[in-house]
Formats: sequence, structure tokens, C-alpha cells
Amino acid sequence: MSIFKERILSEGKVYPNNVLKVDSFLNHQIDPRLMEELADSFYQEFKDARVTKVMTVEASGIAPAILAAYKLDVPMLFAKKQKPSTIEKKEFLSAMVHSYTKDTDNRVIVSSKYLSPEDRVLIIDDFLANGEAAMGLVSLVEQANATVVGVGICVEKSFQEGRKRLEDHGVHVYSEARIASLDNETVTFIDGH
Amino acid sequence: MSIFKERILSEGKVYPNNVLKVDSFLNHQIDPRLMEELADSFYQEFKDARVTKVMTVEASGIAPAILAAYKLDVPMLFAKKQKPSTIEKKEFLSAMVHSYTKDTDNRVIVSSKYLSPEDRVLIIDDFLANGEAAMGLVSLVEQANATVVGVGICVEKSFQEGRKRLEDHGVHVYSEARIASLDNETVTFIDGH
Repeated sequence: MSIFKERILSEGKVYPNNVLKVDSFLNHQIDPRLMEELADSFYQEFKDARVTKVMTVEASGIAPAILAAYKLDVPMLFAKKQKPSTIEKKEFLSAMVHSYTKDTDNRVIVSSKYLSPEDRVLIIDDFLANGEAAMGLVSLVEQANATVVGVGICVEKSFQEGRKRLEDHGVHVYSEARIASLDNETVTFIDGH
Repeated sequence: MSIFKERILSEGKVYPNNVLKVDSFLNHQIDPRLMEELADSFYQEFKDARVTKVMTVEASGIAPAILAAYKLDVPMLFAKKQKPSTIEKKEFLSAMVHSYTKDTDNRVIVSSKYLSPEDRVLIIDDFLANGEAAMGLVSLVEQANATVVGVGICVEKSFQEGRKRLEDHGVHVYSEARIASLDNETVTFIDGH
């Protein structure tokens, strides 16, 4: 079992409604050595995909994404959750993303300057559940007529529909940890370990 | 002149009201090699300060902070700009931060679990202007009775009061690029280069 999965088992906390809290090492406090190991996995999976850019969405995706971009030696681009004052309207692409956890709709945006039809984009995120954020990022890439080479995920809730939505859309998904179930406040990985 | 300052001169764009846009390499699209160089500088400045944790605030601070934490071999903690549903109220520390750029007030929070009186915290952020965000992070560290060992900044607007506020509070500030002026749409560094 990978060190990452071991950390999920030892430090992850399961709450009602399939909430898995891993904020001691992934999305609040972050272990940089663990991020490097995740980045190594993403590098191995996508090193021959001629990636030109790594893309994520603020905030929890940024740490694994910057290290994956470092390994692949390409820039990282993070989508923002609202229009900041320093990006002019006509300069950005946008997509709507629903958060089931918070029951809110957020617009995610990127400056159109940083995605071109020649780009081959690897999307990285910390979690994949219903696939809302990942599909939003895929939409941004497609609006720029660029290519999605794949999606790299730290923790996949495989009992939710995110992977299926991406695969039905023709997108290759690689997840470091695939969770089959969070029933009985217990993490069960999809490979049985 | 450092590569970082050269990138500010070659790619930074100055807008009215002292807005410096560096979103091609620092706070929207991010150059991971440049982040590593910044992290090396922060490491050199703070390597003897017995840092136990690097802290920043979402979202633009995360990339330089995770690489600084990697170099210093300590965890990174990022403050969030609102209460997420997976952190219970009594579990977090909070501080108010005013954004002059957006003219909004945001609460920044961290889980109290991840700051203890033994912690020696290096605060990292992409920009230092009026010092609102940095002072908010200092307040969070102090609420936990932990120690701020210093603040590491990528771009300091030295014509604004942030550094003075931090230094008056007894906090050591190290900035990779110190900007004396953005007058006439031109970046002038404080050391004249």
C-alpha cells in the first residue's frame, strides 16, 4: 500500500454523508514530502503525454499541482472561484461548478491568455467525487480548443459518479487512492486494501 | 538582479492605483522553477530559525509556501478565507483581513489543531502591500501562543505600510523583490535596479 493510502487510513476521519476529512496532510495542513510522492505518481502516469500545462482550481489543488508541474517541467495554471478585480471580463473563460458539500454554485475562471489550442493540459485536483470541479476544468480547456490529456486525482470517491462522467466524456482518469466505501466510518479502498 | 526581479520587469504589468499584475508566473499561471528559486531564498534566510511550520493564506501564497516548506522539511498550513463545512466552529482561530484591492473584509481561519505553543512559524505570501493579510496570519499564530519567526514575501510594495506595520510589531520581514515605486507605469526596485 502506498504511503499516501496509509496516511488516509491512519489520519483520515470519516463523517456522515460520506465526508472524508484529510486536513492534517492534504487540504489544510499539507505534507510537502507526500505532495512530492503524489507528483512522482502523476509524472509516471503522464510523462509520455506531452503535457504543456498543469491546471487545477484553487485552493486545495494547488499544492499537488505545483509539484506535478515541477516534475513535468511545465507551467501550472489555477482557476479562480470568482472574478478578481485584476482580470478584465472579456479576457477570461468561465464554467459553473456546483459544490455538493457546501450546496453552492461557483463560477471558475481562467484568463484566456494562458490556454491556447496547442496546449495539452493535465488537470490535477485533491478530490474527485461527483466530478463537478473536474468537468468545469475540462470545459475551460475545451473552450480554449486545447486538449485534456488526463485528470490526476489524489483521492477518488469511487462510489460517486465523477470518474464515470469524465470517462464518458473521453477523459483518462488516474487516481492515487480510490475509495470504494466510507460506510461504517471506515475507509475501504477499491483494490481491497 | 535575481531572475525573479527580471521576470517582474519583463512580464509584470502596471495598472492605475498601484496595481502590479504578475499573473503570468506568480499568481494565476505559476512557474514552478521560479517558485523553487524563491523557496531557496526563503530557506537561506530562515534555515537557522528552527522553523516548525510554514503558513500562508489561500490561494496565491500556496505555491511558494509548499516549496519553502519542502526545503525546510516542515508541514505547510494554509489559512482559509471562510469557514468550510468540514471545520467545526470551536475548532478554529480566526482574524479579519481587509482587502484594499477588492474593498472587502474576509475572515481568515485555521484549525486550532495545527498550531501549538511550541510552533515556530514562518509566514509566506505572494504580496505584501498594506500588510493586512500578513498581520491577520500573525494574529492567528499569536492566538495559538506560537512564535512568528518571520515573514517571507515574494513581492513587497515598499511604498505601502505593510513592512513597517510588521516591523513595528517586532516581526522580521524578508522580501525577494522590494518595489520602491510603480509610478509612470514603471517598476522601480528599492535597490535602484
